[in-house]
Amino acid sequence: MPVGTQATVKGLTPGDLAELGVGIVLANAYHLHLRPGSEVVRRLGGLHSFMGWEGPILTDSGGFQVFSLAHLAAIDEDGVTFRSHLDGSLHRFTPERVMEIEAALGADIVMAFDDCAAFPCEKSPARAAMERTARWAERCAVAHARIQAEEPWPWRQRLYGIVQGSVYPELRRESARRLAELDLPGYAIGGLSVGEGKPLMLETLEVTVPEMPADRPRHLMGVGFPEDVVAAIARGVDLFDCVAPTRQGRTGAAFTRDGRVNVENAGFTEDDRPLDPECTCAVCTTWSRAYVRHLFKSREMLGPRLLSHHNVAFLIDLVSEARAAVEERRFEAWATRWTDRYTQTPAPEVSCTS
Amino acid sequence: MPVGTQATVKGLTPGDLAELGVGIVLANAYHLHLRPGSEVVRRLGGLHSFMGWEGPILTDSGGFQVFSLAHLAAIDEDGVTFRSHLDGSLHRFTPERVMEIEAALGADIVMAFDDCAAFPCEKSPARAAMERTARWAERCAVAHARIQAEEPWPWRQRLYGIVQGSVYPELRRESARRLAELDLPGYAIGGLSVGEGKPLMLETLEVTVPEMPADRPRHLMGVGFPEDVVAAIARGVDLFDCVAPTRQGRTGAAFTRDGRVNVENAGFTEDDRPLDPECTCAVCTTWSRAYVRHLFKSREMLGPRLLSHHNVAFLIDLVSEARAAVEERRFEAWATRWTDRYTQTPAPEVSCTS
Repeated sequence: MPVGTQATVKGLTPGDLAELGVGIVLANAYHLHLRPGSEVVRRLGGLHSFMGWEGPILTDSGGFQVFSLAHLAAIDEDGVTFRSHLDGSLHRFTPERVMEIEAALGADIVMAFDDCAAFPCEKSPARAAMERTARWAERCAVAHARIQAEEPWPWRQRLYGIVQGSVYPELRRESARRLAELDLPGYAIGGLSVGEGKPLMLETLEVTVPEMPADRPRHLMGVGFPEDVVAAIARGVDLFDCVAPTRQGRTGAAFTRDGRVNVENAGFTEDDRPLDPECTCAVCTTWSRAYVRHLFKSREMLGPRLLSHHNVAFLIDLVSEARAAVEERRFEAWATRWTDRYTQTPAPEVSCTS
Repeated sequence: MPVGTQATVKGLTPGDLAELGVGIVLANAYHLHLRPGSEVVRRLGGLHSFMGWEGPILTDSGGFQVFSLAHLAAIDEDGVTFRSHLDGSLHRFTPERVMEIEAALGADIVMAFDDCAAFPCEKSPARAAMERTARWAERCAVAHARIQAEEPWPWRQRLYGIVQGSVYPELRRESARRLAELDLPGYAIGGLSVGEGKPLMLETLEVTVPEMPADRPRHLMGVGFPEDVVAAIARGVDLFDCVAPTRQGRTGAAFTRDGRVNVENAGFTEDDRPLDPECTCAVCTTWSRAYVRHLFKSREMLGPRLLSHHNVAFLIDLVSEARAAVEERRFEAWATRWTDRYTQTPAPEVSCTS
């Protein structure tokens, strides 16, 4: 799912997303609560109406943002007090309050409020954050059920839990098992892609995913580089969100089947081929590498728009291919071939957070 | 015609423009010759292919930019030597060279290379610039005919002359008459909207337009605020180009039938109405003022895109209404009613140059 932190996938309209076959987008409760305000969004008809996207929306709870972006004032068992990164105003998030905020925003899937440990984190505080996340998830489930019973929207909102536990297999397994007891309709893996590096991320997935209910969607939060998506699907992940396609697009990096390339590359100056000759998106069927390069060299805003469009198309095509390979029981061969080709071009490691 | 100085109407795709009913776009020979290079554009199939726009394109000659944007090194009877505003490199434009550059770019309409006097300008240098513009237009016509005979493109490029003469009626009339002798397929009025103010601009149009051949398109360059377009149509102008809709859109100003408004207006915070309730563009039929305001307050790139889209739609609708009123011989009543309503909201004067 492309990320629309502030109720907009940067540079793209919902019409663009629908044309690309996007099935769901992510928005962020922390950001939207601070601006324009979750109650403002509710009065304007909820996120679907506000941003003009009729498809499913998932709101992240803001746990990650409260711990990484806001100026943290205090954390206690009941919740978190923090200052807005926008204007320094003081706010209080508790599991119950976050459920109210996400109810006001009106997404289809709402994430539980979690205590997201930074990386690196010693095992003892990582355990404390994991256990608090489990207790908060229980409180979220109770509050969510109460709020849903009051039916704020004509559709039912579904609560997903977030597995934490840093990179400690024992903590991840325990987190997954404790959340599973809540019998939620879906589960996410949080606290990865925060600087631990790809090998450790994949190792952690390998111990975590098998503990998550196989009959519920398993969402890996904040991961979306193509090679990571393929590796995570191989480890059982079903859903992804990440700013990568749009952030990379804004900064001039194009995903192609032969790896990631910088479109300002001098070699593109007179290159009349599409960014990715096998891509069927509107960008690749209309414009040349030379034109996209010209837009970036000229600092034209159409450049980031077109490259974001292409990169989202690329990921949608990628997961569509992966899904077909899974269904036809040829995933391993497909993934090996795909990854070998993509990683011929070495790409620097970049962490991916919204 | 929306302005695509660097072969892109800022923020919008050719598909967007076609959807809005745009019939022609402007690009700029000065900018495109410096970057990516007119011969590069030629090798990539010309501007239509390069920017993915199948409709008509007009290239401005760069006369205005050479005199206003570049670091002028020297002007003589033969041409102009200047340094690029991008990298300080030295270039030489003569009428013949500009015809070659515009032939390489491959637009449908190419403007003659003119000597564009700054404002204010004493009458004597204004006369000298006007006379030089007339002599250069003759040289352009000769060079253009020679180049067209070599058929660089499968389509025929048409040369338009540019009337100069600052704000001196006598010079404007003489310029228009001298250019008319060249029997060109169209004529433009240059050197207006450069700081002379609206009353003087309109007075100058009133003395200039009647001297221009009535059976050829009359193009007012660099003018595109809605109220100015209506006033200029009333004075016989047929074609316009201006960065106003996209530049205003990027900076948060929306054209509406009730005047220009700043979308960051606090009154829009919870306003669920469209920017202009009578507008049928995709922006007005999809999003609220509150959402567009949110995009600008959040510095989201979708904001400038949507507002540019709406503003272009607004001008296309405006000229379409004006055209119908002209055809049905009710233009004066329509223009009075339209202008009264639009100018209820006072708008600051802004000059409009690409």
